[in-house]
Amino acid sequence: MNQAPRTIEWIGDADGFVRLLDQTLLPTRVEYRDCRTVEEIWEAIRMLRVRGAPAIGIAAAMGVVLGMQSLAKGTSAVERLREVTDYLRTSRPTAVNLFWALDRMARHAAPHLEKLPPDQLRTMLLEEALRIEDEDRQMCRAIGAHGAALIGEGQGVLTHCNAGGLATADYGTALAVMFAAAEQGRKFAVFADETRPLLQGARLTAWELQQRGIDVTLICDNMAAQVMREGRVHLVVTGADRIAANGDTANKIGTYGVALLAQAHGIPFYVAAPSSTFDLSLSSGDAIPIEQRDPREITHGLGKQIAPDGIKVYNPAFDVTPAALIAGIITEKGIIRPVREENIREVLV
Amino acid sequence: MNQAPRTIEWIGDADGFVRLLDQTLLPTRVEYRDCRTVEEIWEAIRMLRVRGAPAIGIAAAMGVVLGMQSLAKGTSAVERLREVTDYLRTSRPTAVNLFWALDRMARHAAPHLEKLPPDQLRTMLLEEALRIEDEDRQMCRAIGAHGAALIGEGQGVLTHCNAGGLATADYGTALAVMFAAAEQGRKFAVFADETRPLLQGARLTAWELQQRGIDVTLICDNMAAQVMREGRVHLVVTGADRIAANGDTANKIGTYGVALLAQAHGIPFYVAAPSSTFDLSLSSGDAIPIEQRDPREITHGLGKQIAPDGIKVYNPAFDVTPAALIAGIITEKGIIRPVREENIREVLV
Repeated sequence: MNQAPRTIEWIGDADGFVRLLDQTLLPTRVEYRDCRTVEEIWEAIRMLRVRGAPAIGIAAAMGVVLGMQSLAKGTSAVERLREVTDYLRTSRPTAVNLFWALDRMARHAAPHLEKLPPDQLRTMLLEEALRIEDEDRQMCRAIGAHGAALIGEGQGVLTHCNAGGLATADYGTALAVMFAAAEQGRKFAVFADETRPLLQGARLTAWELQQRGIDVTLICDNMAAQVMREGRVHLVVTGADRIAANGDTANKIGTYGVALLAQAHGIPFYVAAPSSTFDLSLSSGDAIPIEQRDPREITHGLGKQIAPDGIKVYNPAFDVTPAALIAGIITEKGIIRPVREENIREVLV
Repeated sequence: MNQAPRTIEWIGDADGFVRLLDQTLLPTRVEYRDCRTVEEIWEAIRMLRVRGAPAIGIAAAMGVVLGMQSLAKGTSAVERLREVTDYLRTSRPTAVNLFWALDRMARHAAPHLEKLPPDQLRTMLLEEALRIEDEDRQMCRAIGAHGAALIGEGQGVLTHCNAGGLATADYGTALAVMFAAAEQGRKFAVFADETRPLLQGARLTAWELQQRGIDVTLICDNMAAQVMREGRVHLVVTGADRIAANGDTANKIGTYGVALLAQAHGIPFYVAAPSSTFDLSLSSGDAIPIEQRDPREITHGLGKQIAPDGIKVYNPAFDVTPAALIAGIITEKGIIRPVREENIREVLV
């Protein structure tokens, strides 16, 4: 099984920089981009050069270290940290891992901000960022281990968007389940929705599965119902960007539709996500803010203009799948099922 | 209300040619292509320069006239006609209007093939082709008249692919319902699925509605469920490529999924199609042949490569929506509802 390139990496000591795989260029170009300022990290998150809820969290944590590198002499570390984290918070609104990672960095730094010299503070922050990255790696493996048994020999799995190694430090969430099942020696077929408008399924998921030698078939989003009807899908597994206390799950636009289609065909629909994706402060999915993105992603995003000038466009980046449509949530701590508030709290705590 | 350009037109007398709007170049280029041979018509149908079940029927009928222009001296008109119609039959497999139009042309010519001189035969065939075109025009208006009342003031309508003037001689089938409602003075909002892989919704439907001054919003196919959930869709209307005796309807891939999503949200799903789209020889949709198209439409069709080299692709051009999901079929003879075999026969005969 081949190894996919590294999604994100800190290079050097606390005065170093972030190297990330520019996912907007995949699959035709594998190019790395070095980010040396917090502004470059913000841009990379905003433009989806790095994407996927867990990877965004890691990028943001490393962005904090970059931001603290430019702590001007004589200025307050407290103020600079707040400035940097507030700024990174504005990069994207939906994935909760972004806010989770920033809060964790701020909390970790808080007792030391007034005491430590800047270089030691940076080192301490870098250690925390690398800890988040390392935990993410272990979390992915644990999700794979818990979920692998869901995929039986000869079955078909459908996934939407990319919740693979590219969305995390390594190995993925939804794809971790598939990687682990493959490592256990089972053969199965994956159907990857291309996932318009930005085609993370075609560009990233198809590529990652292909790299690992897993049987993958690319389909357009609107073909999922047909593939299900043909009896070729036995389960659906997707990632998540934010999960409310009741299990309602925000994920890439189109996930909700896939969940409804799965229900109509009697196919179980699973979500794979780390505990950092849960936002227990929100009682239901109605409270999850949904990012609206540039209409040009739809009209001009594929190399040529595909719609008339001046056309009105609706481009929500996410939708919310109600807990009732979800057969289980595969976390690093175990599978939550049925998806109910008490079961979520029990597994997470 | 502006007038859209002519989809297809016969220029000149029986020795003339076909001029068609090259729909593969829309919406950024409005260019006509003149077809002077039956081979050029075959290519135009295959490559979707002309598409939409009724327009394919008209193009094929005109193609027969072109084919008969090259009737070599001393050869049999019977044989040439069979050759030409057999050839055109191979252009695309799913839309029944193609076969319907070719059968009609052959039937019309049959009694005269051995008797009329070639020039009179061509003239007679051209008259029949123009009659098919003219009937199509009237049929579209009748569909609009029957269906318009389904769209209420301030409502939202979702459509998939293109069943507009570009899919017919003029005015369309699904879009005819919208055009007629707009002509009656009602304001409503249309959501147009972009319709991957060939984007007929983005390129054609959005353009036609915009040209006619109707409020249209372009969405990706995977956003339909979200727009429905937001309560912005009150009915769905699509076209059809072939309808079996029991009402099962083949239409552009993704239609079946939209019908399931509409059902899940309690939204009525209508099909608009002329009686020539019914194939009463097929008892159910299971017998409708489904065209599989080139994987490159998905991986390379949009101006740049969007999937890894060598990726496996599934690209069915159509799916079948079971009659049970269809609230009614709007034909030029009236609305068939509920969609049951006896009601279909009653309205059609």
